[in-house]
Amino acid sequence: MAVEMSSYVTHVNTALSEYLPKRTGYFETIYDAMHYSLEAGGKRIRPILMQLCYEAVGGKESIDAYLCAIEMIHTYSLVHDDLPAMDNDDYRRGKLTNHKVFGEAIAILAGDGLLTEAFHMMLQDVLTHGGQERVHAACILASASGVEGMIGGQVLDMQSENKVIDKDTLDIIHLNKTGALIAAATKMGAVLAGGSAREISLLEAYGKYIGKVFQIVDDILDATSTMEELGKPIGSDMENHKNTYLSFYSVEECYKIAEELTTKAIGLLNQIEGDTHLLEQIAMQLIKRRN
Amino acid sequence: MAVEMSSYVTHVNTALSEYLPKRTGYFETIYDAMHYSLEAGGKRIRPILMQLCYEAVGGKESIDAYLCAIEMIHTYSLVHDDLPAMDNDDYRRGKLTNHKVFGEAIAILAGDGLLTEAFHMMLQDVLTHGGQERVHAACILASASGVEGMIGGQVLDMQSENKVIDKDTLDIIHLNKTGALIAAATKMGAVLAGGSAREISLLEAYGKYIGKVFQIVDDILDATSTMEELGKPIGSDMENHKNTYLSFYSVEECYKIAEELTTKAIGLLNQIEGDTHLLEQIAMQLIKRRN
Repeated sequence: MAVEMSSYVTHVNTALSEYLPKRTGYFETIYDAMHYSLEAGGKRIRPILMQLCYEAVGGKESIDAYLCAIEMIHTYSLVHDDLPAMDNDDYRRGKLTNHKVFGEAIAILAGDGLLTEAFHMMLQDVLTHGGQERVHAACILASASGVEGMIGGQVLDMQSENKVIDKDTLDIIHLNKTGALIAAATKMGAVLAGGSAREISLLEAYGKYIGKVFQIVDDILDATSTMEELGKPIGSDMENHKNTYLSFYSVEECYKIAEELTTKAIGLLNQIEGDTHLLEQIAMQLIKRRN
Repeated sequence: MAVEMSSYVTHVNTALSEYLPKRTGYFETIYDAMHYSLEAGGKRIRPILMQLCYEAVGGKESIDAYLCAIEMIHTYSLVHDDLPAMDNDDYRRGKLTNHKVFGEAIAILAGDGLLTEAFHMMLQDVLTHGGQERVHAACILASASGVEGMIGGQVLDMQSENKVIDKDTLDIIHLNKTGALIAAATKMGAVLAGGSAREISLLEAYGKYIGKVFQIVDDILDATSTMEELGKPIGSDMENHKNTYLSFYSVEECYKIAEELTTKAIGLLNQIEGDTHLLEQIAMQLIKRRN
């Protein structure tokens, strides 16, 4: 990764370690479990996209509470998805999943804790700084991670296992399960910076396009990568009889679709006045990623 | 229940049915699961306390978003607590628990959905109406239901099973697991009404006292009631080797402590200028409740 980009990863990691509630005497275990999954080497793609969109539209203050919140919500969703009752995964990012280390009960509560503290963090920020933009941003995240977003997508995904679904349903699953949070990240960045309606809508659409690319590549990697490279068992989609893009397209066709979406995403960035070269870089990297 | 009080139950139930997102084509199942537990006959004690405290301090507008939010958060905590990995309960309020009806995966997601939509609802309300009081109230709820509140208490409770703990630890468990949300309800009511620091602190303290009474009576009922009366299996505390007030006191001593706390709670209400007779009634009913 370029030096320039890695400074954003560092920024997010520092923010997380500052914002996350510290371990205290009585509640050590739950903090340990929350930190374990937060620190298990995520790519921080959502907060980085938010920060970059924020800067592209001219934002100059700290939006760390929102960067942390979206990463915590993403992490909680992984912890709950990995549970035996859900995808039953033992490994994630090359490490044992939360419930394999802390047990199911604590993993459920750690997920609940990450979700609750994400909102707590944003609300405290709004209480301190005020500002309609901040309330709006928190509201976008609530909506994207809720029943009409990430949770709904997850339910639909589960219900579609072992079933024949059409391409539209697959798109709806992905748009909600993965896409909603990525588009929320880019939209929140623009909203927090006080961007115009046009800027907000351009960056949200950019998020939707790259969110879809992200998912297409995820599906390809699950079928073609190795556990060493991916950090989690491969072939789990097929094992769980999940519908993926590979249920409808060949790997070559998938990459072609992903390339078209990437081109569209970059086309949107070109209509933004501010500096979007790192957002462009991310769009191009997503399609090439190996893990 | 007195007619006067039942109008508050009706108010809360109407608010819940208006505020809760409606079932839609794609996401039917998750809505059904959320509604199932929300409509499973809760006493609505937390939102009623909030509304009464709001009115006692002179509040006159609608705070329905907050009434719904606290009931949804309470309900999510029950859905997750009942899971096989946690308390493994089959019945709650005389009905099958969420996971017995919808399966574990949907129950986990329904809990996540109730929690997320609770914050969504409050944030939308803040976005529409503005006002520092509303942000403050949402922040109180986030804090009370988070790691340093309800979730922390739940973790500590689980970790104390099969262990000898002292009275102080038991108090910390209860103060967080049950007390935090009840005290949040009364405090939020006062905050939303723009109460003075003194009013807020009196009503919060009232909430803490009756929250403790609530838990003491819960412990007694679990050991002495019948399944028909309680709507859930009795003796589950003992079966799960949980520490309760009955680990330290006799039933008679428990009732004596509960009476002292009730007297203190009512003493606090007498220092509030507004009408607190229903809050007084609740305090007195809690100690007599049979389910």
